[in-house]
Formats: sequence, structure tokens, C-alpha cells
Amino acid sequence: MKIAVDAMGGDNAPQAIIEGVEKARDQFTDLEFQLYGDPAKVKPLIKNEERLTMVATSQEISMGEEPVRAIRKKKDSSIVRAAKAVKDGEADAFFSAGNTGAVLAAGIFVVGRIKGIDRPGLTSILPITKPGAEQKSFVYLDSGANAESKERNLVQYGYLGKFYAENVLGVKNPRIALLNNGAEEDKGDKLHKAVWQELNKQADLNFVGNIESGDLLFGKADVVVSDGWTANAALKATEGTAKMMLTLIRHGILNGGLRAKLGYLLLKPVFHQIGKRMNTSTYGGAVLLGLKAPVVKTHGASDAAAVANTISQIRTMLKSGVVEQTVEFFSQDSSVDKADKNE
Amino acid sequence: MKIAVDAMGGDNAPQAIIEGVEKARDQFTDLEFQLYGDPAKVKPLIKNEERLTMVATSQEISMGEEPVRAIRKKKDSSIVRAAKAVKDGEADAFFSAGNTGAVLAAGIFVVGRIKGIDRPGLTSILPITKPGAEQKSFVYLDSGANAESKERNLVQYGYLGKFYAENVLGVKNPRIALLNNGAEEDKGDKLHKAVWQELNKQADLNFVGNIESGDLLFGKADVVVSDGWTANAALKATEGTAKMMLTLIRHGILNGGLRAKLGYLLLKPVFHQIGKRMNTSTYGGAVLLGLKAPVVKTHGASDAAAVANTISQIRTMLKSGVVEQTVEFFSQDSSVDKADKNE
Repeated sequence: MKIAVDAMGGDNAPQAIIEGVEKARDQFTDLEFQLYGDPAKVKPLIKNEERLTMVATSQEISMGEEPVRAIRKKKDSSIVRAAKAVKDGEADAFFSAGNTGAVLAAGIFVVGRIKGIDRPGLTSILPITKPGAEQKSFVYLDSGANAESKERNLVQYGYLGKFYAENVLGVKNPRIALLNNGAEEDKGDKLHKAVWQELNKQADLNFVGNIESGDLLFGKADVVVSDGWTANAALKATEGTAKMMLTLIRHGILNGGLRAKLGYLLLKPVFHQIGKRMNTSTYGGAVLLGLKAPVVKTHGASDAAAVANTISQIRTMLKSGVVEQTVEFFSQDSSVDKADKNE
Repeated sequence: MKIAVDAMGGDNAPQAIIEGVEKARDQFTDLEFQLYGDPAKVKPLIKNEERLTMVATSQEISMGEEPVRAIRKKKDSSIVRAAKAVKDGEADAFFSAGNTGAVLAAGIFVVGRIKGIDRPGLTSILPITKPGAEQKSFVYLDSGANAESKERNLVQYGYLGKFYAENVLGVKNPRIALLNNGAEEDKGDKLHKAVWQELNKQADLNFVGNIESGDLLFGKADVVVSDGWTANAALKATEGTAKMMLTLIRHGILNGGLRAKLGYLLLKPVFHQIGKRMNTSTYGGAVLLGLKAPVVKTHGASDAAAVANTISQIRTMLKSGVVEQTVEFFSQDSSVDKADKNE
């Protein structure tokens, strides 16, 4: 299995990317890597060239660039070249820690959508932090690729999420929920009421109804389907609040004198455990589901361990055949199409 | 100043309501209260009848009832009667801990909107938890009264929030921000892009641009304007995550043996401080801004202290003349109307 790696993207690139790739390469003997980037910067960092191929590119897309224009203009950027390798069958999957918009655009316009999928969904794997929960993570899409969504898109996300949860997370008959502003069937605006009805009709989906954003981490569903706009608001609020709580605790300890510092030392293992549980990078990167191959974007601030985790996730996607299964499902004249006719 | 109190609404009613009212009555000698409810249940709980008038009502609206139908059918409910007293000038403000939808409906249909306001906004007062922040709370509206909003509504929320922050929180020239999916001017869907432009044009508003949901508690704005849908998603995610973090800490301590328990004892003051800071009930209830009188809904689970806090908030609203100021502003041929013509 060959993974095309954008070696230049991310706050700690190329250092953290190369380290993470080498870590994953040493762990998984069935993986080969193509490193797209500036050889002058990348090559000196490589410790061992085994199963690593350097592919020289002359351009970089920075974090702030307008994505669609960037991928159109910078044909020799590491992002576009790596995506192109997947399109041309030279690689099986595309990995980047770079400009999210550019990775999404390269995924959609270069790698290409699966036939029948209107809009791919950016899929985050998030922790279930409820103590004692059986599953440790859940699938959340669209977590922000599309600011405006249609009924049909959200029904398709139900299937994309289901296939991912089954194949990659190993969840049997995953519970699919709809992110909404209340638990009851009649909650939500026009779009969400219609999506509820449509998801409820899908015989192939184990639809469990609405979920509210306050319950996301409580393990009530394996797949949470949402329009990108709402999901983005809920996800950022979740991350921001977790960060704020940790800030408050840190501040309280620093200003609480010797007593607080001693208390912290004693509670350190507990805090460490919580930090580990809340650290989304251990669950892998964000996958743009609905494309002809795995396109996975890890956080810009990822370190080598996060990069290696994400590559392990890509490997599971490739081995499980989740993309092939999705292609096959959407190639059939499926009931998902009916949602379209109702619009 | 006379406050019409729904004595029957809330999980701990009428006990917590009466206790809270008596607490506020003892604290503020300029307040009088009308208690709407079942005298058989309410009267035995009253310790001292000073400045308390019992008004017998025969119906109750429960938490699960469909709001608009409930207020239409149950004319002799404590909610409708208390709202009616405000409409008829017998009371100056309406307080309830009951069915949120019914309180909103009674506010809109019985108390009535200020002329020029299309949709009142449910306004939460939320904590700024950033250590060292000058302000301790901010104004957040519409936090869920309307699932679908228009440009004009959001611009009006900017003014409603400004008047509240100035008069009730005592913030000079409050910073107004728009909740959006990114910080830059061009972020968001069509609605949010248009609202950004319109807010930016208002010479009377200190508009500071977009805010993302992850930054809500960080004190970057004094008033956060949002459509009700997005605000609801962000608010519930914020509350849910804070709750989950506390659950994780509690679980870690309970399962961490003697060491963790000792650590907890030492850190107890720090946790206590954080809990106090995050406890939204200390900042008062949710106000339906844009009505002809203060209509304030406190959390269903409120205890006597939360009830008393909310009454103190209502008193500040009455004394500051925030409603009168809002009425005067919207009675003028203001620039807010221009937003309407652009739609």
C-alpha cells in the first residue's frame, strides 16, 4: 500500500511529518511512502530511506492561502502533486497536515468524488469520554467542509459514516444520530425535520434519532450526522471549553500556593489520563469521506506521534476496503436517491 | 417595583421559588411581589407575607407541553396570568422557572414586543472564565428562541445586547461580535456575510467582527450576536463539555485510590472556585429582550439562591431603564431599518 505524503504541510513540517512517517514505516512493513516536497529541506531529515521515495516539488501552499485558487495555480505544490499521484493510481491514499481548505479542494477536484456522492463530508473521529463507555470514539460528519447542506447530503453522510464506523472502528451495526436542537422527532428547522424523516426511512441505517450538541462526548451514537455549519459550531465550542477548563485548572494550581501544587502532584495521573482521553490526535486525522481514495488531513500542530497515528488510520482504511464498499453501495440505484426527489 | 412571579414553574417549585423570592424581598426593600399559583401549595411555604401578594390561579403548564397551544388554552395558568399582569400594568416584570417555550410565548403574545422589533431574542448571560479578564460575563443572543433568523433580526440583537450590557452589566461602549465559523470578514454562509456587513455599518455599535464558538468564554466580546440555531448548538456544546470534564475529574478521583482522594482534598478550593465561575445561575436568568417589560426565565433546576440572583437581575433591569431606552431607540427612524430593505 502506497501513501502519498505532503511533506511540507503543517506547523512542524517537514520535521514532524518525516519523523512520523518513519515511525509508521518501522511499525507497518506493508506500507510504502512517497514524500512530496522540497528535497533540500526533506532529505536531510530522513534517517532511513527504506520504503520512502522522495518526489521533488517546487511550490508550497501556505496555511493562509485561498484554497481553490491555490490548488489551481500551484500545480507543482506538494498538496496538488500528492493528490495527483492518487488520481493517477501511483498512490493509494493522500496524507497532509497542511492548509485544510486546500487539502479538501485537492481531494474533491484532483482525487475526485465517488459516483453518486454530491458532497464529500469532512469526518472527524472524536473521543467518547464517558467513563465506562464501550466505544472510545465516534464518527462526526460533515464537520465543516460545507457551510450549506441539503437533505440529500446529510442522508449520504449517514451511509458514509456507517461504512467508516463498521470498517475502520470495528463497530457492528453503528448507531446513527442526527445533530439537532432537541431530542424529539419534531425538533429543528425545516432541513433537520426533513432529514430526520429521511434517515428514519433508510432500512440499512440503524438510525437512533436526534442528538444534542451537549451530549456529543457521552457516547450516545457511533455516527453523528450534521450539516457542516452546525457541526463546526458545536465542535469548536467543545474544543474551546475543554481548553478553557484546563486553563482554569492550571491557573488555579499556579495561584493556589503550596497546597494546590501538592494536590496537583497527587492528582497528576488523573489529569494525565483525562488529557490523553481528550487528545483528539490519538484518534487519527479528519477524513474527507466520499472520495475515490482515502484523503486524510491531520491537525496543523501535529507532532510525529499524531502523524504516525493518522497513517495507521489510513492503513486501516486501505486494508478494510471501506472506499470500495462505499463505491459499490452508491453505484446501486439506492434509496438514498429518493431523498433527492423530495427536495 | 412590582414583579409578577410564576410560583408553579420549575423542578423545585413552589418551594425554591418562594424561598428565593423571600430572600430577594428581604434584601431589596424597593421590591413587591405577586405570586401566581395554587394557594394551597404556595401559602404554607410563605414565612413572612411582607410585600408578597398571593394571586390564585387554577392551571399549570408543565415542562413537556407544547408552548403556544398551552398558553392559548390555559388562560388561568400561573404563566399566562403573571404575563397578563405585566401587560395590564399591574406588574413591571415577569419571572418564571417554568416551561421555556411557554414563557417565551407568553412574553411575545401577552406582554408584547417593542414596536420596531421583529423577533425578541432570548439572551443568556454567560461567564467569561479567562483568568484575569476584566469583565466577568457577556451577553449572548439569540440563544435559542428562533430556529430561523433573518439579517434584520441579528442586527437588532446587536442593539438589544448593547443596551443590556451598558445598563445592566455596566459595560461602557460594549464590544459587539458576530458568532461565525471563522474570524475573517468573508467567513460564513450568505446570512452571516450579510450580517457582518450590516453590523459593520452601524455607527452606534462598537462592532469588533466575528467570533468563533471556541472563543466564547475567553472574553473577546461583551455581546455575542448569533442566529438562535447556531447559538443553541454552541451553548449546549459548551455546557456539555464543561459537565463532561467535571465528570471525568470526579471519576478519576473516585477510581484513583487514596492518593487521588488526598490530591482532591488539597485542590478542593481550586475546584470550588472553578465550579463557582462556571455556574451560570450566578449570572442571572435568560432574558427575552425586545419586549415591553423584563421577562426573565431562570433554569428549571434553579435553587433559592438562583431565584434570588435572577430577581436581583430583574431589579437592575427595572432601575436602569433598559427597556425604556430600547423603546426610544426603536421608535426612531433608525439605520437598523435599512437592513430590512437590503433583504
